[in-house]
Amino acid sequence: MRLSRYFLPVLKETPAEAQIVSHRYMLRAGMIKQASAGIYSWLPLGYRVLRKIEEIIHEEQARAGHIPMLMPTIQSSDLWQESGRYDAYGPEMLRIRDRHDRDMLFTPTAEELITDIFRSHVSSYKDLPLTLYQIQWKFRDEIRPRFGVMRGREFYMKDGYNFDLTKEDALHAYNRHLVSYLRTYERMGLQAIPMRADSGPIGGDDTHEFLVLAETGESEVFYDSEITELTFGNREIDYDSHEQCRAVLEEFTSRYARTDETHDEALFDQVPEDRRRTARGIEVGQIFYFGTKYSDAMGATVSDREGNQVPVHMGSHGIGVSRLLGAIIEASHDDKGIIWPEGVTPFHCGIVNLKAGDAEADKACEAIYAALRAIGLDPLYDDTEERAGAKFATMDLIGLPWRITVGPRGLKNGVVELTSRRTGESEELPPEEAVQRIAAIYGLAQA
Amino acid sequence: MRLSRYFLPVLKETPAEAQIVSHRYMLRAGMIKQASAGIYSWLPLGYRVLRKIEEIIHEEQARAGHIPMLMPTIQSSDLWQESGRYDAYGPEMLRIRDRHDRDMLFTPTAEELITDIFRSHVSSYKDLPLTLYQIQWKFRDEIRPRFGVMRGREFYMKDGYNFDLTKEDALHAYNRHLVSYLRTYERMGLQAIPMRADSGPIGGDDTHEFLVLAETGESEVFYDSEITELTFGNREIDYDSHEQCRAVLEEFTSRYARTDETHDEALFDQVPEDRRRTARGIEVGQIFYFGTKYSDAMGATVSDREGNQVPVHMGSHGIGVSRLLGAIIEASHDDKGIIWPEGVTPFHCGIVNLKAGDAEADKACEAIYAALRAIGLDPLYDDTEERAGAKFATMDLIGLPWRITVGPRGLKNGVVELTSRRTGESEELPPEEAVQRIAAIYGLAQA
Repeated sequence: MRLSRYFLPVLKETPAEAQIVSHRYMLRAGMIKQASAGIYSWLPLGYRVLRKIEEIIHEEQARAGHIPMLMPTIQSSDLWQESGRYDAYGPEMLRIRDRHDRDMLFTPTAEELITDIFRSHVSSYKDLPLTLYQIQWKFRDEIRPRFGVMRGREFYMKDGYNFDLTKEDALHAYNRHLVSYLRTYERMGLQAIPMRADSGPIGGDDTHEFLVLAETGESEVFYDSEITELTFGNREIDYDSHEQCRAVLEEFTSRYARTDETHDEALFDQVPEDRRRTARGIEVGQIFYFGTKYSDAMGATVSDREGNQVPVHMGSHGIGVSRLLGAIIEASHDDKGIIWPEGVTPFHCGIVNLKAGDAEADKACEAIYAALRAIGLDPLYDDTEERAGAKFATMDLIGLPWRITVGPRGLKNGVVELTSRRTGESEELPPEEAVQRIAAIYGLAQA
Repeated sequence: MRLSRYFLPVLKETPAEAQIVSHRYMLRAGMIKQASAGIYSWLPLGYRVLRKIEEIIHEEQARAGHIPMLMPTIQSSDLWQESGRYDAYGPEMLRIRDRHDRDMLFTPTAEELITDIFRSHVSSYKDLPLTLYQIQWKFRDEIRPRFGVMRGREFYMKDGYNFDLTKEDALHAYNRHLVSYLRTYERMGLQAIPMRADSGPIGGDDTHEFLVLAETGESEVFYDSEITELTFGNREIDYDSHEQCRAVLEEFTSRYARTDETHDEALFDQVPEDRRRTARGIEVGQIFYFGTKYSDAMGATVSDREGNQVPVHMGSHGIGVSRLLGAIIEASHDDKGIIWPEGVTPFHCGIVNLKAGDAEADKACEAIYAALRAIGLDPLYDDTEERAGAKFATMDLIGLPWRITVGPRGLKNGVVELTSRRTGESEELPPEEAVQRIAAIYGLAQA
């Protein structure tokens, strides 16, 4: 993308309403604009990151054998009456009357609707196991929305639902989701720690929240420092294997890690003192096993091998997609701006033309731009006539992990500059080599 | 995808509530399920087509230089008060009160919000031209929703907005959209004819609707039959060239083609009688130039070259994404089911194993499945133990354009059967050749 043709309305001043760094940077980098309290428009740069995150989730869900679909945002209240949650949900549910005076709502979660779809179409154990998921806009009418997309009212969420014949199978689905989520977050450059949590209005006994450590986190967390040394990495896993998935769960949940809701001081004291940590965390996902809570209430049964009608065992699993942008920025920034992990960066690298209009500089930039695009990368080429300092400030603010700087002086020596946003380190090298380096970083071969 | 692990709840019976063929087939093929009146869940098969259509739109918008973003579904009424449309819009607008008793609404279209974003961030002609678009869920509280996704209440729509310094530039944006839409529809296997239309509540003088001819269309249309012979094809076009875009507009709009709203009997009579056609059409998109209607009302001005503040010239441009599924099916089906055009098919081809459990048949199917996936295609492999007749009926119903049938008898002669859904013609050939043929159809080389 050429910056001269893009819409990137960066702000020089820090907006007064933004209390935390991710909110400030998302506004300043022209990623979002508040439409009304807790409701945001996603400007082009923010939308690009949202799509990248969405794509990673889809890929990892596919890998785990989960099937994508989509449920509507507006639902009738009927199913919620049936489950008993319509009255229980409270004022966070956005209740709506349509023109025929029917009670509708903007869905905050979809256990009821998915259970209804299931009971309408599935009647035999032969069709199990089944995990369906969606990535869809949700609404919770927070009384005091704040922190930008971290605690907005309209938010984008992945919510998945597993249906299994037995508790054992459903617990495998739980474990499988844990594995899948670990991979998902790591691809986004995040360490998200599974912590024993409270189930809240979803219900159920087994639940883990995934928390990203950050000073601005809304939850106090307590953990054994060993847990931060674990990484999932590139291990191959068979998602159908109960054993393999259970082993990962055990590895990642055997050490103490809890939010304040489930914190147990006596247990925590058993962790060696030098490994006990208290910190703050941002919740970026949660998995639940809640058994037959909804299938009992709504009559979602299947016939088992013996022909008996049995309620299915269920769980649900969520990732806060829009909130992840905030969480990633909270975990990865400096005083100049955002530092995107390579997995979610809106553009793979920036190209700064120090002297737009100079024939040599223009030509070299165009060649680099074309070469990067030819190998399937999306560079952002600053081809404007701004001065160099302002161009660097914008690139630092929007946080592309790599920048290629091109100027007449370097070109005389046959070199451009390749700079890492994270370390700030620069290196001079011929343009073709800079392109090769970027290609290698993103695991792509040059054509 | 293996059918045994997929969620494809096909229905044997025709649902009573479905009055038109697309609605019937979408229900029967397990693509959608009604959640409440005019509101649908998109089951996995339907969701796949929705995503394909969305992807084609994104690709063609990018080609035309338009920039994707996303606006929220829930908006405050404030901006709509400012434009004067809040009272004008009538009961089709879903009005909502939040917990603080503020007037909100589920957005049916976004001229106001995008104009607000523009006026907040753009102040100079130097930032023009600019075209922003989104693909987002909208809501119109139709009094009598019907025909499935063709006239639903919650619907998925691409809406784009251009901002230009002069009327001339804005008319170029209009023409550019017309070109881009022609390409977009053709990639979906649709002939969508631009017809002079009425602007309705959006406003403005210049507007064309794109109509797909189909018996079940809601509009009566009148046209010169020569227009159905035009195709855009694979021509290369420079979207920045006013001349090239205007030439396409002239080519595709110079012949008589109007909806009943703008039909002019006297003009129509000038078309040679043997070329005069009356038919029905489904509206799948519309482009508007409305000048300064919103920029005047909302103060969206820029400074021009001489430093004067001038209101920007605007247009808006929509494609009914969810409704397109219905339109494509109306235009492409037979009495056995849907016939997907290759551009939007949910799976590139089906593989039917006539004897699941037979070692040779299983092995051949697995090899074909793996080979197709290796070249980047998504086959749907029916690996279930259903009888052959039922498998064929399902494949015909869900409408994959190509089917490879594998059975022990053919394998003894070293062949499988390749069948075109459209023509019904079958051909026997070795498995590797069948894979090559499918690869060639989708323009992919075999690895």
